[in-house]
Amino acid sequence: MSSTPKKVVLAYSGGLDTSIILKWLQTEYGCEVITFTADLGQGEELEPARAKAELLGIKPENIHIEDVREEFVRDYVFPMFRANAVYEGLYLLGTSIARPLIAKRLVELAHQHGADAVAHGATGKGNDQVRFELSAYALDPAIKVIAPWRLWDLTSRTKLIEFAEQNQIPIAKDKRGEAPFSVDANLLHTSSEGKALENPAEEAPEYVYARTVSPEEAPDQPEYIEITFEKGDPVAIDGQAMSPATILTRLNEYGRKHGIGRLDFVENRFVGMKSRGIYETPGGTILLEAHRGIEQITLDSGSGHLKDGLMPRYAELIYNGFWFSPEREMLQALIDKSQEYVSGTVRLKLYKGSAHTVGRWSDQSLYSEAHVTFEDDAGAYDQKDAAGFIRLNALRLKLIGNRNARVK
Amino acid sequence: MSSTPKKVVLAYSGGLDTSIILKWLQTEYGCEVITFTADLGQGEELEPARAKAELLGIKPENIHIEDVREEFVRDYVFPMFRANAVYEGLYLLGTSIARPLIAKRLVELAHQHGADAVAHGATGKGNDQVRFELSAYALDPAIKVIAPWRLWDLTSRTKLIEFAEQNQIPIAKDKRGEAPFSVDANLLHTSSEGKALENPAEEAPEYVYARTVSPEEAPDQPEYIEITFEKGDPVAIDGQAMSPATILTRLNEYGRKHGIGRLDFVENRFVGMKSRGIYETPGGTILLEAHRGIEQITLDSGSGHLKDGLMPRYAELIYNGFWFSPEREMLQALIDKSQEYVSGTVRLKLYKGSAHTVGRWSDQSLYSEAHVTFEDDAGAYDQKDAAGFIRLNALRLKLIGNRNARVK
Amino acid sequence: MSSTPKKVVLAYSGGLDTSIILKWLQTEYGCEVITFTADLGQGEELEPARAKAELLGIKPENIHIEDVREEFVRDYVFPMFRANAVYEGLYLLGTSIARPLIAKRLVELAHQHGADAVAHGATGKGNDQVRFELSAYALDPAIKVIAPWRLWDLTSRTKLIEFAEQNQIPIAKDKRGEAPFSVDANLLHTSSEGKALENPAEEAPEYVYARTVSPEEAPDQPEYIEITFEKGDPVAIDGQAMSPATILTRLNEYGRKHGIGRLDFVENRFVGMKSRGIYETPGGTILLEAHRGIEQITLDSGSGHLKDGLMPRYAELIYNGFWFSPEREMLQALIDKSQEYVSGTVRLKLYKGSAHTVGRWSDQSLYSEAHVTFEDDAGAYDQKDAAGFIRLNALRLKLIGNRNARVK
Amino acid sequence: MSSTPKKVVLAYSGGLDTSIILKWLQTEYGCEVITFTADLGQGEELEPARAKAELLGIKPENIHIEDVREEFVRDYVFPMFRANAVYEGLYLLGTSIARPLIAKRLVELAHQHGADAVAHGATGKGNDQVRFELSAYALDPAIKVIAPWRLWDLTSRTKLIEFAEQNQIPIAKDKRGEAPFSVDANLLHTSSEGKALENPAEEAPEYVYARTVSPEEAPDQPEYIEITFEKGDPVAIDGQAMSPATILTRLNEYGRKHGIGRLDFVENRFVGMKSRGIYETPGGTILLEAHRGIEQITLDSGSGHLKDGLMPRYAELIYNGFWFSPEREMLQALIDKSQEYVSGTVRLKLYKGSAHTVGRWSDQSLYSEAHVTFEDDAGAYDQKDAAGFIRLNALRLKLIGNRNARVK
Repeated sequence: MSSTPKKVVLAYSGGLDTSIILKWLQTEYGCEVITFTADLGQGEELEPARAKAELLGIKPENIHIEDVREEFVRDYVFPMFRANAVYEGLYLLGTSIARPLIAKRLVELAHQHGADAVAHGATGKGNDQVRFELSAYALDPAIKVIAPWRLWDLTSRTKLIEFAEQNQIPIAKDKRGEAPFSVDANLLHTSSEGKALENPAEEAPEYVYARTVSPEEAPDQPEYIEITFEKGDPVAIDGQAMSPATILTRLNEYGRKHGIGRLDFVENRFVGMKSRGIYETPGGTILLEAHRGIEQITLDSGSGHLKDGLMPRYAELIYNGFWFSPEREMLQALIDKSQEYVSGTVRLKLYKGSAHTVGRWSDQSLYSEAHVTFEDDAGAYDQKDAAGFIRLNALRLKLIGNRNARVK
Repeated sequence: MSSTPKKVVLAYSGGLDTSIILKWLQTEYGCEVITFTADLGQGEELEPARAKAELLGIKPENIHIEDVREEFVRDYVFPMFRANAVYEGLYLLGTSIARPLIAKRLVELAHQHGADAVAHGATGKGNDQVRFELSAYALDPAIKVIAPWRLWDLTSRTKLIEFAEQNQIPIAKDKRGEAPFSVDANLLHTSSEGKALENPAEEAPEYVYARTVSPEEAPDQPEYIEITFEKGDPVAIDGQAMSPATILTRLNEYGRKHGIGRLDFVENRFVGMKSRGIYETPGGTILLEAHRGIEQITLDSGSGHLKDGLMPRYAELIYNGFWFSPEREMLQALIDKSQEYVSGTVRLKLYKGSAHTVGRWSDQSLYSEAHVTFEDDAGAYDQKDAAGFIRLNALRLKLIGNRNARVK
Repeated sequence: MSSTPKKVVLAYSGGLDTSIILKWLQTEYGCEVITFTADLGQGEELEPARAKAELLGIKPENIHIEDVREEFVRDYVFPMFRANAVYEGLYLLGTSIARPLIAKRLVELAHQHGADAVAHGATGKGNDQVRFELSAYALDPAIKVIAPWRLWDLTSRTKLIEFAEQNQIPIAKDKRGEAPFSVDANLLHTSSEGKALENPAEEAPEYVYARTVSPEEAPDQPEYIEITFEKGDPVAIDGQAMSPATILTRLNEYGRKHGIGRLDFVENRFVGMKSRGIYETPGGTILLEAHRGIEQITLDSGSGHLKDGLMPRYAELIYNGFWFSPEREMLQALIDKSQEYVSGTVRLKLYKGSAHTVGRWSDQSLYSEAHVTFEDDAGAYDQKDAAGFIRLNALRLKLIGNRNARVK
Repeated sequence: MSSTPKKVVLAYSGGLDTSIILKWLQTEYGCEVITFTADLGQGEELEPARAKAELLGIKPENIHIEDVREEFVRDYVFPMFRANAVYEGLYLLGTSIARPLIAKRLVELAHQHGADAVAHGATGKGNDQVRFELSAYALDPAIKVIAPWRLWDLTSRTKLIEFAEQNQIPIAKDKRGEAPFSVDANLLHTSSEGKALENPAEEAPEYVYARTVSPEEAPDQPEYIEITFEKGDPVAIDGQAMSPATILTRLNEYGRKHGIGRLDFVENRFVGMKSRGIYETPGGTILLEAHRGIEQITLDSGSGHLKDGLMPRYAELIYNGFWFSPEREMLQALIDKSQEYVSGTVRLKLYKGSAHTVGRWSDQSLYSEAHVTFEDDAGAYDQKDAAGFIRLNALRLKLIGNRNARVK
């Protein structure tokens, strides 16, 4: 890190902050800047980022704008949902899962352009810096990572605006003042945090929510949909096959309409502090419920309980930025192995903030009505077996009971 | 088990099935029967059980009817909720958690009466037989457990009714035919399963639900409540202190009103088959959400993640009937240790099937606005520390990256 | 299980007990018997089993004698050693790991011969019955498994000898009396248990040990060997490539000579009781030490610690007979993923009962002298990074410390 | 950390390095220094440290020399051994477990003296800095920790010697040159690492070992000892009750004599690199074996397997410096709960590098000869129970087998 970077690939949104970073990299290091702007489904026009980058002197061949939505959903979101991953019981990891992909493209572009560094706009207090940098270092141990927010002295809004003005960086009117909170978005979720939301005792105001109507405003009639899975991944809605990103997009529409997937949450950051976030994961919330629904009939207890016990560790790894680590890949191998037969269809009821499984069926189901029935089971199950089963399970407890009675 | 029981304590509901068992025990073994009928909050009158037992020839001093609701909630339900226990991702263990208490009282009454056996009315296909018997054997390794459903030849409804008629057991009119499904209830939940519910592809009909209005019928206006916790247990609602059973009762009323806590579920039974159940856990669902809410600000990541990873194992133990096992007690010691500072208040929004945390505060909070703030933090956190933090976390990944590049 | 078996594949050792079983199956069920005798490296001549089976009326085409040593070591022993599997801290699972292979061949022969049942000679108190039967049922859910020891009334030595005499089964002289203890052997280990060994307070007499000289009798000079691994499996000793079974055989010779791999152990059986066994695993003990040695330089902490935490569960699954279960396969996928780079060579010192790693090297090593050196490291590691690393790891603990000071 | 410390408590060994640190603190910060020198059983005279501190200008009332051996063994070593803790399969954590105690005393002395900082002599590459500092920050979030090795420019031996000479610090003759390796010692172990030992492929020379004779030099006759445990802790040797530190001292003598407890190891440091250490843990190695021996008969499988699966996480916490963390305390609560009945006596054979359990007995034993016996068990165990036990355990596997056959 000691030497000055010569060529830097910057994760560039086209917004004010990353534009300031772009200019700062040019002025601070005199280095060539390559911009990478990804369409992850955040719902913003990306072409303005091209114009702005050009305005800031980036050569056209150094401007990269890419639609990575299919890759994002197929290679990151869906593998994670195979694990039913939630962080600290509730958070669907919408921000965490996007960072490794961005870091990967930054490093690939660095190699393509012969750049020696990558740069990102994450602050020094959050998790995203960790996720970007661990991913980048894992993929190229020799790469330099530049995190201007940890380096520069533009530590107030006033100084940032001054720097922008001095450097002819256009400032949208609504960016002059402080935003009331900070937002991150991609196809999986939108997160809002900071400033107006910093008091975890106060309910977040309705205007914070950007991706969902409020449950109160949602339709008064429930809606039913059917999601079909193959090997743990959704492949169709209501019988219509779709690509990964299309499925998630469609589920987001359902979720938005019915006010599904809102979360008011206080979490433990990897860097050691707690923070409060408002998350909206409309399609992901439906998908998690549906995936659990299909696993209910296709996974046995041995597989399911093993997965359940490891899920928190898996989610923690993703949250902490260790997507590109051997241990995440080991857990993924275990999880993917479990999904071989997780195929079938789940019927869900969507209504005013909730998605609930109300039916599920599969050619690969392990549910056996012949065994479970209260009716005559035609010999499928001999109830007398239960006596031996219980007695041997109890043997240990009896020996303990005898010992404790003897000793006490 | 070889010898004939002489005196048996029977878990007696007063219903047709356990009345048949009562009589069967008398006729099959010629033994004296002691009945135990517990008020676990199932919402039924228990005095008729006394009259019926007397009618069947049980001596008054052998009839025990007890209100164990406070013990149930204080010593079983609340300890379990400290763990945020859910079985297979979704089930709140409402049936499982009641069995150990019943078994414990059966054994205690056996000791009090000098009885050599206990008996229960659970079938040979389910989990409850396991839970009753493991608990009984753990508490008294020498006790006999009699499970008539695994022993007798009354294997059809017709034969049961015949036996009842031959033995002058009164049969309520609506009990002559088959019930459309089987129900279990206590203060924590109501479960329905079997027969009409055996096809997991079909949505359960509305009439199955007994403890909650449907979300569609719930009020159109959200309602807010505040639950206060001390050391992981709820102690007050809206500032009003209440006993454990009272709190759960009150939360059940809120849950019923707002259609909260319905679950359509396919689960793995300990005996090896899958079954489908419809569960209603109105108060428990609110309580779980609230407990997670207060843990968000009072538990650090080390404690919380350790708990999260062990929770599935803990829930499995309870589901499988191992409440009175050393390993459940070991896990309880770990969980209880974590709850020392889990005190404070959570504000929840209840609306049409959902309970969501919208605010939480505590004198014992670990949330530090000083650290997390986007504003100037007055030196609470040095962003430059993050660089070293990331670099040392990345060192391992870099060494792996170098190795992999070298080898491939 | 209700119907009488028509054709049975018997796991047949050629010894007295399984010969009695053979005859009993013929007389009890009037069924055709196919014998399967496996060379698992137990060190006995197997051809006598053929003669004896013929003598008992088995048709030549129904007698199967197979050398399965390579399959045993390659597909069962080595995959297990990739996990460093030990049961309850010390036992190398030598008996457990052989059972699934035998069961698999029994089922395959049943299919080949159109047999409807398999039979084994394990008793009703041990683990082996469970291992045989779970494996058989997993591979063919419709197969019948016959366990004569749980069925017949030949419950004493006298009755067995009588039955043998009545049925013209030859009885070796030394089999008339009770053996002083029971023995099981294969290429991985020899176990001895029961009778003379049933008091866990008493040291096992030297004559119990069959596979190793006593450490006291071992050479007074240490010997050094080098074991080379590829992807977690040993492939060469002292630079000489060998097949899996050959390697284990050679390591057994080293172990025997130096008195390595003896274990006096009390374990928890799956069926609920404790038992005491004397185990000799000469080659396996050396292999475990060597595998740990090569992992020390080729596995990072993320991979290693994840494996370590799951190993007890993996070992328990093998011990309990769940080799052919989805959860064992899921764990194997995880473990195998970790072994991709576990290649290199370990140098071991063998001396009077011990095998210790004294050196290890690998092209795929993660050990970096450049980083760890006490000498000048030429900038490989910036010690100042440690300050930030520690401060952010401490942040959580500081917040807790402040809270606790505030509350108490 | 920004402000200059005014009063510092230094972990002071009396050696050259910490004497240089002492002087450096005085000159760099002009601060008052309090020295803390602990007798942890490292086997060195401590009074010379007093003389040297006085020589360097420390006021007598600021010099603390304490014998903390009993506290060390009772409150740190023994609790850790209850868990059978080993790091990465083999390392007994001898250095790790001493650091929290030293840090605790430094903080307590800081409070006593009104000091605002503590200082230690650990380098910036190792684990000890982390252990000291996490412990100190956990116990006093406001304390400053000074780690001169990360701060100063005395980065070579030559510069250190120069500084010592310029500051009248006495230099022992043998300290002028570089030590061939670095040593840490306490009552539990001695570790040696660095420099001459940095190549993990080369066997460590015999002269490195300081605490044990080589197995080759150990007596040709085995020796037997008996260790008695109460609630998981050793309380007597050969029937003679002793204090914790006395027991460990005595076991160290046995271990030294018989060459027990040597380990040549490559481990993963918390800071991300691998290092090679030579460890000698003579008494601890005997103690671990004995503790496992007594657990074999007093712990059931439920308790034992739960402990086993959590042990690696517990060991990792201690290794990484998180002794004073909520999660370590939670795990300790779980472990301690398991030890309630871990009482009894173990007989061990010590011989040429090995300690092996050869017998164990206890009033609280769960071993039941009545159940396990090959002889007639008088009805303690009904072998027919095993059939039902196996069939219900197999039910899940059969349903999977049927499904897989159907699908493929």
